[in-house]
Amino acid sequence: MSEKAFQDFYPDDVSYCYGCGRLNEQGHQLKTYWDGEETVTTYTPKPYHIAIPGYVYGGLIASLIDCHATGTASAAAYLAEGRDMGTAPAFRFVTANLQVDYLKPTPLGVPLEIRGKIEEVKGRKVIVNAWLSAEGEVCARGRIVTVQMPKYLIPEE
Amino acid sequence: MSEKAFQDFYPDDVSYCYGCGRLNEQGHQLKTYWDGEETVTTYTPKPYHIAIPGYVYGGLIASLIDCHATGTASAAAYLAEGRDMGTAPAFRFVTANLQVDYLKPTPLGVPLEIRGKIEEVKGRKVIVNAWLSAEGEVCARGRIVTVQMPKYLIPEE
Repeated sequence: MSEKAFQDFYPDDVSYCYGCGRLNEQGHQLKTYWDGEETVTTYTPKPYHIAIPGYVYGGLIASLIDCHATGTASAAAYLAEGRDMGTAPAFRFVTANLQVDYLKPTPLGVPLEIRGKIEEVKGRKVIVNAWLSAEGEVCARGRIVTVQMPKYLIPEE
Repeated sequence: MSEKAFQDFYPDDVSYCYGCGRLNEQGHQLKTYWDGEETVTTYTPKPYHIAIPGYVYGGLIASLIDCHATGTASAAAYLAEGRDMGTAPAFRFVTANLQVDYLKPTPLGVPLEIRGKIEEVKGRKVIVNAWLSAEGEVCARGRIVTVQMPKYLIPEE
């Protein structure tokens, strides 16, 4: 597993995402790493991230899968170009399509593990498969089509 | 438009959802209403619900579409049975599959309108189409397959 998370390589200007920006103090600050050919993020929901008592609300699950996937897409793009993460120009991806299957209720109060695998890297598009587990059981599966962020969205230096 | 939101009819025990529970003080407390044959929710993201500067992060968009859809599903089920909302037994739905297409970046700092339309009510399943707009432009579209909450998930009275 790499020591520095993918999100720690993002330039400051694109590090405010509520899901994964290291500079968003109110956000989840997700940290995604390589683990062999897979990517992994862990996150423990807060007690108020409840759906019904005892279970995590679905919007958070979608958010975790989504931000894990855009982080994975960024790492995949560097890998495809044979470049080290953090080298300029930075790769940042946004989601075009998100699909989540909720397979079983996700228990609240335990760490969640989100894993990802690259399905395809093609031009400016990266497709990622992701799955979220609690206590060793897969609770949700996602497929995320991401595209490289259009230049007009990137803040000027 | 009805005066009382769908979520205001939910029994207390299932009113803690971070997205739509009226009893979750940290949550979004979404309020969904009928507007003709469509359903509507409005929500203004907080400044920290940022993706990149100026835009709303995708996980919130997925959450808003998701909770709007489960609220719509509940209202659809009452309508299908010709029952008034709030009559027992309560209908509560969970999401089985969520699909979101992100059509354009969603501006931060303005109210978002989420609208829904019932695609199908079949047994314990309700399918909802939903779309999210900012300043009159549709920024995301979703399709949500919801199922009536299994009894074992409902807290005992």
